[in-house]
Amino acid sequence: MMLINGTASTQLDARDRGLHYGDGVFTTLRVRDGTAALWEQHAARMQSGCRQLGIALPDTAQLHAEAQQVCAGATRGVLKMLITRGAGGRGYAPPRASTPTRMVALYPWPEFPATHWREGVAVRVNTMRLARNPQLAGIKHLNRLEQVLARAEWDDADIAEGLMLDDAHQVIEATAANIFVVRDGALLTPQLHECGVAGVMRAEIMRLSQLSGQPVQECALSLDDVRGADEMFLTNSVIGVWPVRKLDTLAKPVGPRTQAIAAMLEQSCPAYA
Amino acid sequence: MMLINGTASTQLDARDRGLHYGDGVFTTLRVRDGTAALWEQHAARMQSGCRQLGIALPDTAQLHAEAQQVCAGATRGVLKMLITRGAGGRGYAPPRASTPTRMVALYPWPEFPATHWREGVAVRVNTMRLARNPQLAGIKHLNRLEQVLARAEWDDADIAEGLMLDDAHQVIEATAANIFVVRDGALLTPQLHECGVAGVMRAEIMRLSQLSGQPVQECALSLDDVRGADEMFLTNSVIGVWPVRKLDTLAKPVGPRTQAIAAMLEQSCPAYA
Repeated sequence: MMLINGTASTQLDARDRGLHYGDGVFTTLRVRDGTAALWEQHAARMQSGCRQLGIALPDTAQLHAEAQQVCAGATRGVLKMLITRGAGGRGYAPPRASTPTRMVALYPWPEFPATHWREGVAVRVNTMRLARNPQLAGIKHLNRLEQVLARAEWDDADIAEGLMLDDAHQVIEATAANIFVVRDGALLTPQLHECGVAGVMRAEIMRLSQLSGQPVQECALSLDDVRGADEMFLTNSVIGVWPVRKLDTLAKPVGPRTQAIAAMLEQSCPAYA
Repeated sequence: MMLINGTASTQLDARDRGLHYGDGVFTTLRVRDGTAALWEQHAARMQSGCRQLGIALPDTAQLHAEAQQVCAGATRGVLKMLITRGAGGRGYAPPRASTPTRMVALYPWPEFPATHWREGVAVRVNTMRLARNPQLAGIKHLNRLEQVLARAEWDDADIAEGLMLDDAHQVIEATAANIFVVRDGALLTPQLHECGVAGVMRAEIMRLSQLSGQPVQECALSLDDVRGADEMFLTNSVIGVWPVRKLDTLAKPVGPRTQAIAAMLEQSCPAYA
């Protein structure tokens, strides 16, 4: 089911600036038993993204009602919410008064193998690089050609994700997930001040780690740093935590820290159990 | 008038990857007396952009018929053509078989002051920088948040355009136009191998200059280079050529090379007279 501005529809105004310029933001949530997990965090991130793009802030109570409406009765699924600046004239200048467009839609649950969580996934390194723009860094906006072209680089179902480096050769994220590594006992994740998406699940893992007394360090990570790490895992709000068992040809163990983090998430948010 | 996949409509499938990821290309053309100027060049650039993104190439004969249909009877206007990878599932991976979406639409002619062509325009320098990604450089794709946010930086009707520098401080283009400068008798334009849009009008000016025996040089240009230039002008397929008479507080003359280039374009393509 899909709601466009609150009305059941699968059609959108073709003049929408989301189509013409990617002028908007989105987010995806795990749905279990009619409820979207980590709702408040996702709503807050959409608000923050809209603020950064100068798009009028969505009414989160209205969004929540619409999310509940589309998720009602769904045992499992993925909720996608998308906000654009709305329909506009031709030209980049944002209209002085535009009414944002909101799309709230339930998608089927992607049937990932259960082994992705238990035994981990294989990951490659993408050729496509992330361009660096501090003014857009962190925002889950609709300009996603880098991710699309990176994801088009492989068609091997055995490879679950691909690492994205920026043009300064730092590892930033995967195409649709954030990454964490364990090295010398420390839990590390790439800093995202120049590019990358600040995932809701990334923030949740950081929050839980902080609470447990073992805070995550945000830092610069080279590919060699990642290759040399003792453990590695991927996170996003649909999958939760996937251990990485192979990076190209390099085998990685599913280590105790990764298992502890996954267990902590399951306890804190049962939708991820 | 707007055609979506050949049918008069202003509605689009809300699952379109153009909306979700900016997964497509577009182009805008000047319309005079029912005809879109430089049609072949625009069609060729769309084909080239689709090829670079791995989108099935549009049937240009069909596009042309649709363009003629929407332009019929229009004395003046702007034709916009937009191609996306089509509607797709959730997720960045391009579907194996997707049918591209095409939008062909006529927009009203923007009523720019006649002085913009005769006396030149005032230009500012944007704060927003262009991120560099050689794999996307040159393509007129739908990921345009940098341009949207740059254009939102000013609201002064006396300023027609804003220069965009990349994150290495080179001048690349304006938000919706390419730039040329004359320095020590040479006609120069920024190289676009790392970012920027390779405009159809930019290529046309380069072609005409080459024919006239005074080829354009593509090179790196700093803001100081641009400030120190003897002449400066902007080009795109809607405006043709606009001299720059002021860069921030610095006055520029509308020089003889700029006037010669504009005259050459008018002679070669009467739609720009």
